[in-house]
Amino acid sequence: MRIRVVNPNTTAAMTATIGRAAAAVAGPGTVIEAVTPTTGPASIESHYEEALAVPGLLEQVALGERDGVDAFVVACFGDPGLDAARELATGPVIGIAEAGFHAAAMLGRRFGVVTTLARTTGRAWELAERYGFGPLVTEVRACEVPVLALDDPASGSRALVVEECRAVLAGGADAVVLGCAGMADLCAEVSREVGAPVVDGVAAATVLAESLVRLGLVTGKRGEYAPPPPKEVTGVLSGFTVAAPTAVLSGVSA
Amino acid sequence: MRIRVVNPNTTAAMTATIGRAAAAVAGPGTVIEAVTPTTGPASIESHYEEALAVPGLLEQVALGERDGVDAFVVACFGDPGLDAARELATGPVIGIAEAGFHAAAMLGRRFGVVTTLARTTGRAWELAERYGFGPLVTEVRACEVPVLALDDPASGSRALVVEECRAVLAGGADAVVLGCAGMADLCAEVSREVGAPVVDGVAAATVLAESLVRLGLVTGKRGEYAPPPPKEVTGVLSGFTVAAPTAVLSGVSA
Amino acid sequence: MRIRVVNPNTTAAMTATIGRAAAAVAGPGTVIEAVTPTTGPASIESHYEEALAVPGLLEQVALGERDGVDAFVVACFGDPGLDAARELATGPVIGIAEAGFHAAAMLGRRFGVVTTLARTTGRAWELAERYGFGPLVTEVRACEVPVLALDDPASGSRALVVEECRAVLAGGADAVVLGCAGMADLCAEVSREVGAPVVDGVAAATVLAESLVRLGLVTGKRGEYAPPPPKEVTGVLSGFTVAAPTAVLSGVSA
Amino acid sequence: MRIRVVNPNTTAAMTATIGRAAAAVAGPGTVIEAVTPTTGPASIESHYEEALAVPGLLEQVALGERDGVDAFVVACFGDPGLDAARELATGPVIGIAEAGFHAAAMLGRRFGVVTTLARTTGRAWELAERYGFGPLVTEVRACEVPVLALDDPASGSRALVVEECRAVLAGGADAVVLGCAGMADLCAEVSREVGAPVVDGVAAATVLAESLVRLGLVTGKRGEYAPPPPKEVTGVLSGFTVAAPTAVLSGVSA
Amino acid sequence: MRIRVVNPNTTAAMTATIGRAAAAVAGPGTVIEAVTPTTGPASIESHYEEALAVPGLLEQVALGERDGVDAFVVACFGDPGLDAARELATGPVIGIAEAGFHAAAMLGRRFGVVTTLARTTGRAWELAERYGFGPLVTEVRACEVPVLALDDPASGSRALVVEECRAVLAGGADAVVLGCAGMADLCAEVSREVGAPVVDGVAAATVLAESLVRLGLVTGKRGEYAPPPPKEVTGVLSGFTVAAPTAVLSGVSA
Amino acid sequence: MRIRVVNPNTTAAMTATIGRAAAAVAGPGTVIEAVTPTTGPASIESHYEEALAVPGLLEQVALGERDGVDAFVVACFGDPGLDAARELATGPVIGIAEAGFHAAAMLGRRFGVVTTLARTTGRAWELAERYGFGPLVTEVRACEVPVLALDDPASGSRALVVEECRAVLAGGADAVVLGCAGMADLCAEVSREVGAPVVDGVAAATVLAESLVRLGLVTGKRGEYAPPPPKEVTGVLSGFTVAAPTAVLSGVSA
Repeated sequence: MRIRVVNPNTTAAMTATIGRAAAAVAGPGTVIEAVTPTTGPASIESHYEEALAVPGLLEQVALGERDGVDAFVVACFGDPGLDAARELATGPVIGIAEAGFHAAAMLGRRFGVVTTLARTTGRAWELAERYGFGPLVTEVRACEVPVLALDDPASGSRALVVEECRAVLAGGADAVVLGCAGMADLCAEVSREVGAPVVDGVAAATVLAESLVRLGLVTGKRGEYAPPPPKEVTGVLSGFTVAAPTAVLSGVSA
Repeated sequence: MRIRVVNPNTTAAMTATIGRAAAAVAGPGTVIEAVTPTTGPASIESHYEEALAVPGLLEQVALGERDGVDAFVVACFGDPGLDAARELATGPVIGIAEAGFHAAAMLGRRFGVVTTLARTTGRAWELAERYGFGPLVTEVRACEVPVLALDDPASGSRALVVEECRAVLAGGADAVVLGCAGMADLCAEVSREVGAPVVDGVAAATVLAESLVRLGLVTGKRGEYAPPPPKEVTGVLSGFTVAAPTAVLSGVSA
Repeated sequence: MRIRVVNPNTTAAMTATIGRAAAAVAGPGTVIEAVTPTTGPASIESHYEEALAVPGLLEQVALGERDGVDAFVVACFGDPGLDAARELATGPVIGIAEAGFHAAAMLGRRFGVVTTLARTTGRAWELAERYGFGPLVTEVRACEVPVLALDDPASGSRALVVEECRAVLAGGADAVVLGCAGMADLCAEVSREVGAPVVDGVAAATVLAESLVRLGLVTGKRGEYAPPPPKEVTGVLSGFTVAAPTAVLSGVSA
Repeated sequence: MRIRVVNPNTTAAMTATIGRAAAAVAGPGTVIEAVTPTTGPASIESHYEEALAVPGLLEQVALGERDGVDAFVVACFGDPGLDAARELATGPVIGIAEAGFHAAAMLGRRFGVVTTLARTTGRAWELAERYGFGPLVTEVRACEVPVLALDDPASGSRALVVEECRAVLAGGADAVVLGCAGMADLCAEVSREVGAPVVDGVAAATVLAESLVRLGLVTGKRGEYAPPPPKEVTGVLSGFTVAAPTAVLSGVSA
Repeated sequence: MRIRVVNPNTTAAMTATIGRAAAAVAGPGTVIEAVTPTTGPASIESHYEEALAVPGLLEQVALGERDGVDAFVVACFGDPGLDAARELATGPVIGIAEAGFHAAAMLGRRFGVVTTLARTTGRAWELAERYGFGPLVTEVRACEVPVLALDDPASGSRALVVEECRAVLAGGADAVVLGCAGMADLCAEVSREVGAPVVDGVAAATVLAESLVRLGLVTGKRGEYAPPPPKEVTGVLSGFTVAAPTAVLSGVSA
Repeated sequence: MRIRVVNPNTTAAMTATIGRAAAAVAGPGTVIEAVTPTTGPASIESHYEEALAVPGLLEQVALGERDGVDAFVVACFGDPGLDAARELATGPVIGIAEAGFHAAAMLGRRFGVVTTLARTTGRAWELAERYGFGPLVTEVRACEVPVLALDDPASGSRALVVEECRAVLAGGADAVVLGCAGMADLCAEVSREVGAPVVDGVAAATVLAESLVRLGLVTGKRGEYAPPPPKEVTGVLSGFTVAAPTAVLSGVSA
């Protein structure tokens, strides 16, 4: 089984982190292919950046589709382009916010979210509502560490994330979802420190994508998610989805 | 007052229709500037096309911002890129689905929507829920005429839209919202035929944008909608939002 | 275009304030007619007072209808008698709570409300839910200044309203709605002080009423809002709606 | 125990029917006092009529309060003036829509409503949502018999109500609520004919009012439902609530 | 009229308390039969204990059904086995959480709940949502006194319950529901101390059960609540519901 | 990894079917242990039967816990005893309704359910709401084949299930969830016939349980789902959870 994990931003170091997190939980027969788009922002912390990231993400999905991968993971907590990717792909496509919410929902009655900047909490709530999990979310808290500073020890990100997770748990949540792909390598340690289940969306999306493939389940294609109708695209984005396979694979599991 | 109405698709004829619809309802002192993006799909009938339309739309918003326009209208019923445009713009930004829903909500207890293809009804419901209008929507019906065929008399679009509007009203709605910018010039006639209020989102968004400007109200900028943080964008979309002002203005009111 | 703005309470000074606020934002060709009912309470701070205000309000709507005005504004934040007024009027009728919510909803993701007495917050929540905005409201706070003391400098109302608006914004709202027609003349100053969009419902309702008239949209009249069936009314309220036009117009714009 | 049942319309024959329905289920020690307002419409089938009925209803509540009755029933399915009545009364006040919904909710998972004119179904839904029962209501159907024709055999009301009840049950409801005080004397027969629980709101409100009195429970008076603040009322409604006790009692149980 | 009040736990002293609370509010002609199951846990403070309590509870319902009682009360705030009991019983079955919520909902706009252990608050919220009262509940607070310690003066339960009730009222609730059958005899005193309506579910369920019997209303039996289909039950629970009538009646009113 | 799949009814043939369905999708290193309770009903088609099934189910969970299994599946679509099982187990516990809903939610925007008897549809809706999926469910349809007749070719179950699935898809769902563990072996064929994704909850729960174990995630144990407090249990259920390991394992994968 091949799962292509698309980091929607263009920071290769983050793609590597994401690839490792996915490979660490993938089943024995699963190949993880972590890829970086050819165009887009270095990180995603606003609606604007999310919008600019989506074409590059969709190019990677089109390439993965050409390469016959079995499923896709969209590895940014805003789940950018998820609906569009589902139209393009034959197999399942899972967003990491979606996956984190699904996993946390099975661990108790309610859960909270700890994300990066406060300006992204609105999007997290919107996605929770969209997927049905709004009533299960106790709160969405921000540690106010920018995405690309998460792996800088000077940012104190681990301590700040632990602190916000503790606040979430004190508020009555049974579990916590980490709200950024860049937190993937903090998850195990944070969970140990707070003594409660903490969910990394990258890992969760990986095993859920595998699960759907194992079940033989794919996106329903009879209505909203049918392949997009043929349509002329003009300007710099024309022919975008048939660009040469320039994606660099990293974090590939054995 | 200057309002820039952005048609997110690249079909200039549709921009002209949209510009006329906006100019027809704009107040005496208001200049309507209808623009077409430099890149994107010819029409938007899928999530994929919506995603490819957004960068070109945002370029137009950035250009309008440079030109000091007072407000923006996003003239596609999926309200593509609305949150991102609100981050970029100083003045208000109104989507035509949003505007159609707001107007219809003030005309009775509940309303229905008549859109183009059935595959777009999911997005219409999602937007209604997002803005709070979910409980007020009775149903979303599709006439199954593609966007670019709406103004082709051979499509029978007017009769089909009338038929669906009648079905919506028979179901208990007090008003109907037309779910596509391309239906703007059908609105008056359809309303006459069905004998009930029918709302065109383009016209509604134009007067609502004017209203907010008149009230001195702008998007709240202290949190989620603050300007996006400075960020490197690489690849074909790099420098996209500072591209030369190639937008063609059409449908400009006196 | 003529818009009749009905102050549902009998305090003429408040009608004058309301009329000025409406006239200040009305378009060039619009005449604002602010009127006071012939019967009812001096201010509305309870369900009981709201109930006693409605017959006098409806008398003004009937008079306006006789006079052929184009639209009505109901200028009390409880939106008293709004459904009944919609049955009586040919043109649109807008409540100021409704209008404030609609305007604020277009300025960001969520908004809060600052009202007069805490005992009125239940009604504000009820209206927000009724119009669909419940999920967009962060909180409803009270400054505990009675309606008729708002324009008494000794009440400290401006400072108290500013304080509550700041609390609303600190709680994550993108905008604030002022929850009383009597706060109309505080709005601009409060907005400046708190540095965020603050919405006065009277002004908002005025431009929204104009907007609907400009769009040619009226209340749907095929069901719930059809004219009331002929019915005998006995006692002191008999013939109430055909009383002589004793309404005093004030705040009329040029 | 004395329960004053207020028919908010001015049709004495309907007051008598309501009084009989209440007396038929009241406990041994309970006196039912059915009263008619001194002013208002002959029946309530629109928001306008509901608004004109409320002052007369509140006068009856004020008189009942002066007479020391233990609880009130508001006997119109729109629950007119319920919040205002709760401010005026010391003891509990129950509306018949409210009561019908509460009773039906205890008889299964979901229930439907059969009302008079289709134009009143919007209000029934609004009340169901307000009280929390929205998700439990399967549908609200109308038999299209006007209120005052319900007891006219020529209207065929019984057969029409039976037909609509059957449709509600076929749709999966466990019980049916009759949506008009004027249907009180149809209830037993309709229930027999359809072979399922059918709830009359007048009877339900009577026993629920008794229940609250027996439990020693009254409306919470620390916030929204505190007595209205002293306020000048001018015009024909001035001094309305201290009018002489002209209410005619009928349908009084032994 | 005979109402069988089933204490789902096996602590006879608590059955006696429950029986007294029910008998104290029952009408003149009503016989209260408080019973204890033959098997189950000594108290219910977890989902596990609730599950083990249900078979014994259902045995008591089957016995009551054999004895021809008119209605049942399930006297534990988790409303254990309520749906199953409704399938078994001919007459109405009321849970005390359900009853407490219904009563409180008629006393104002919103209410709060004060329960025993924090671990039971999730169940209280779940029931509130199930019955439709979720939007009316302000909060569910715990006094952290175990069920069987409530009547031990050393537990300080009364003072702790008063304190939590005060917090609920300070948060804007109009009334409070006590969240445990074991609090039945605290209710009057707590209500006096906090000066606001406080609802005991046991008393509320008793009068609501009487109310439904008086109205001639029973559970709808055409669908979900029809008698269970004949089915083989094996093992220790086989034949459970036809066990000999070992139930001990206590708290029987005159 | 060892996953114990508990069939909550006592029909061994159904345990075998369930075990095969689970083993068919389990990963290479996973051992599936399908077990049957020592007491309970032959099938579960009512709330009553569900209640009688839970103690036997919990006994199997206690036994599995003693045996150190890694996770549990509750293989009945009513998800009986799920909360209680989560209190008892150290590892994750997944219900098959829950699992089916989670899987289907990732395959499109909305899904429908096809279950056995119409009397069970209320429970399916209740669970969907509880888990947050209510807004995603289009409808719950019944094929009216009893559980134990599903594998009897004479019941025509396959054709009936196909028919109901087609109706669900025609109503706009992107996927269908089969609402009974007894439909596990119909799933692949039904999916082929209807040409859309059809989800079997047993298979879905198996891979989701594996997923959580792989992620190192367990039920949050700090609040509602902490182990039940020590408590005396009397009567036939006393000592129930420490009974000898009489469970018969079947359907064990290699």
